[in-house]
Amino acid sequence: MTLRRVFIANRGEIAVRVIRAARSLGIETVAGVSEADRHSMAARLADRAVVIGPAPAAKSYLDGARIVAAAQGTGCDAIHPGYGFLSENAAFAADVEAAGLVFVGPTPDNIRAMGNKLEARRLAIEAEVPLAEGSPRLHSVEEAREIAGTVGFPLLFKAAAGGGGRGIRIVRHLDELAAAFANASSEAQAAFGDNALFIERYIENARHVEVQVLSDGQGTVLHLGARDCSLQRRYQKMVEEAPDFGLTPSLREGLHEAAVTLAQRIGYRSAGTVEFIVDRDREAFFFLEMNTRVQVEHPVTEMITGIDIVAAQLRIAAGERLDLSQADIGFRGHAIECRINAEAPLRNFAPTPGRITRWTMPGGFGVRIDTHAEAGWLVSPWYDSMLAKLIVHAPDRAQAVARMTAALAEIQVEGVETTVPFLRSVISDPDYQAGRINTRWLEAAVERFGATVPLSSQGGNTG
Amino acid sequence: MTLRRVFIANRGEIAVRVIRAARSLGIETVAGVSEADRHSMAARLADRAVVIGPAPAAKSYLDGARIVAAAQGTGCDAIHPGYGFLSENAAFAADVEAAGLVFVGPTPDNIRAMGNKLEARRLAIEAEVPLAEGSPRLHSVEEAREIAGTVGFPLLFKAAAGGGGRGIRIVRHLDELAAAFANASSEAQAAFGDNALFIERYIENARHVEVQVLSDGQGTVLHLGARDCSLQRRYQKMVEEAPDFGLTPSLREGLHEAAVTLAQRIGYRSAGTVEFIVDRDREAFFFLEMNTRVQVEHPVTEMITGIDIVAAQLRIAAGERLDLSQADIGFRGHAIECRINAEAPLRNFAPTPGRITRWTMPGGFGVRIDTHAEAGWLVSPWYDSMLAKLIVHAPDRAQAVARMTAALAEIQVEGVETTVPFLRSVISDPDYQAGRINTRWLEAAVERFGATVPLSSQGGNTG
Repeated sequence: MTLRRVFIANRGEIAVRVIRAARSLGIETVAGVSEADRHSMAARLADRAVVIGPAPAAKSYLDGARIVAAAQGTGCDAIHPGYGFLSENAAFAADVEAAGLVFVGPTPDNIRAMGNKLEARRLAIEAEVPLAEGSPRLHSVEEAREIAGTVGFPLLFKAAAGGGGRGIRIVRHLDELAAAFANASSEAQAAFGDNALFIERYIENARHVEVQVLSDGQGTVLHLGARDCSLQRRYQKMVEEAPDFGLTPSLREGLHEAAVTLAQRIGYRSAGTVEFIVDRDREAFFFLEMNTRVQVEHPVTEMITGIDIVAAQLRIAAGERLDLSQADIGFRGHAIECRINAEAPLRNFAPTPGRITRWTMPGGFGVRIDTHAEAGWLVSPWYDSMLAKLIVHAPDRAQAVARMTAALAEIQVEGVETTVPFLRSVISDPDYQAGRINTRWLEAAVERFGATVPLSSQGGNTG
Repeated sequence: MTLRRVFIANRGEIAVRVIRAARSLGIETVAGVSEADRHSMAARLADRAVVIGPAPAAKSYLDGARIVAAAQGTGCDAIHPGYGFLSENAAFAADVEAAGLVFVGPTPDNIRAMGNKLEARRLAIEAEVPLAEGSPRLHSVEEAREIAGTVGFPLLFKAAAGGGGRGIRIVRHLDELAAAFANASSEAQAAFGDNALFIERYIENARHVEVQVLSDGQGTVLHLGARDCSLQRRYQKMVEEAPDFGLTPSLREGLHEAAVTLAQRIGYRSAGTVEFIVDRDREAFFFLEMNTRVQVEHPVTEMITGIDIVAAQLRIAAGERLDLSQADIGFRGHAIECRINAEAPLRNFAPTPGRITRWTMPGGFGVRIDTHAEAGWLVSPWYDSMLAKLIVHAPDRAQAVARMTAALAEIQVEGVETTVPFLRSVISDPDYQAGRINTRWLEAAVERFGATVPLSSQGGNTG
């Protein structure tokens, strides 16, 4: 089978990313855009753009029926869902297939298995992948209180249907438990239509490390190494790196093996990511969840492996076998990604929609920009605030940090405030540079950096 | 020794390139700019910018005394000459050293040895590097006629002091000889202040293949593989690739070895390029010249080796030894560079100075942009017309061609006409894609493409 024309059911930089990957394979593209995205870069770069509905995502990017109809109406033979929106919606994937189209991603069963976090934990146990101590589905706050006695504090409430950091609460003392249970439960209900929670042990000195897997669904499952994504604020990643760093070789090998084993166990197809918490005090790792889609941070893995992950998704979706073995996957250097968002760090990272009047990005050796922004673009209040991903690649982590520092210094954006000045503070921090970070580091640093970040997102300097 | 602050005696993209390399090594930068370049990207990105003179290069970028004084006046400990201008001027390099500054490049003796093309041929003979049949310095048109009888037609007149395609004439018949001799001779006098010519056999079915060498001047000489730069118009390169392609492994090894031998022979220091003509009909190669500077097309080699050539120049200039052996140099994939010039292909590639009003470049995986242009920049009539280098990297040549095609399609430049539409025609040509090219191919294709290139440099399309 050959894909001839793919429909892109997404927006922003990932829509541009998919267009580029498709074009490199000779596949035509149709961008399905909302009315607000009619003049977006993706709309311009695709071979064709069609409006699928009004700006609110519920009426466009989340409207599966409209998307399938638009893909059929434009003669597409496949749909790429990007990330977010409908990318991990098993029913949508099944609808796409029922309409006779190829879903560029995992099977509906893959998505379903990993979508419910309790089911995913059960499968991880079967695959003998280590899990943080926790509970099955909680039925009441009383039951939560009882289990908390065994697991101990601090602990986490997590949404069974969850993902993306929603429906999570940390509980440090028994007297916070009831309120946290109620908050997490209602947030889970609002976000996922399912208020079910479970308990997981909270690890204080943790790294978020995730393994990229690539599987053709025909027996070959490879890993492309791990990424460190510990720099998060409110469970939103801000800086990501590949490969992981500071872990012992045996821990790293254990992570790789666990990820491949789990993907094999569920007959996984396409690109996917198995997320782990690494307990730095115990030098142990625990399965968190599997993301059954391409991730925002996939470029850092591409930089060190040379493998185009989105092109691989498209080729696998066309039925191609992976013509690689694990030994063919080489790793070169170190890559770092910074997410550049239209947000005001000093106003609690509130979104800053508006028109971009100047947009000068860095370039040159080892610098990659994935963006949908440009001068003249109106940053909409309707969607997430990410404008660009700045990715650097260098022979080692220290040189990658130096390159990122230089690249961030070059950025000049006018018209909307961005997180660039904040990112400059993060990257120039001695603890960050020495790798003395964990998943709580950035949250703690926000306050510290907050006072020193200038309000302007202007960069560079004149002689 | 550590370099603390480097003076950049150049402009355009190479000035930006050097700033980035220096910054990645923690070295401060001072950009020496002409009055016309006061608001250039290099002036903005450098730690400091100083005006060294008026727009005409003779009064700024070619005024060695002013440059040395400006470097001393700004507390610099080194000067990077970029390419062109004073980069291959042995007297300037000596002046820099005499002023107690480090010249980031080869020794004055290295430059001198390779600067005179007849002396370079003599050294190549000593190093047993093959030379195209030719002559020593010609003393008269009569002598030229006599030697032509031995070498045969077609032949080339070349300037002894030459380089960059100036002072070269092809002679296909005896009756063209006298006029060609006079023209080449006066062009050489005008360009180099020396009218001396020599004869070289002209190879009809030739590739221009050059080997990048890197030497620490302390005994270690490495090659970073070869580049194919056969696509030239009037001896100006337009598209360059790495690695070379279509050559037999033994020919390729011969090229590498010859380049390293020659560099060793002259005790070469820094990055340099040994240029060869490959005769495709005889599967043989012949030494052309050595460029004792960083070249415009160095990025394609960086992409496939992962080695930062400009950073290596700076480190070698600081006295560092190369901590690499030839076996450490790995090659990954294929890279192509297109030079984007402010020129009108339909008007004989006349420069098109003016103000850039829109500047949207491609990005994403495997795409690198080295530029000094941006929206609002006034392209000056004073300097060469190159605005940007678009470099792509992919696992093999076919995929690199696909990526270049997609990247060129994304470019949107308004305000000045560029060579982008012409480059699109070149890259989409079946002969180019199949590698059926030689050094005469582009010249012949200019006419063919000329009629079909739209005047607008607009790209992209809308749905």
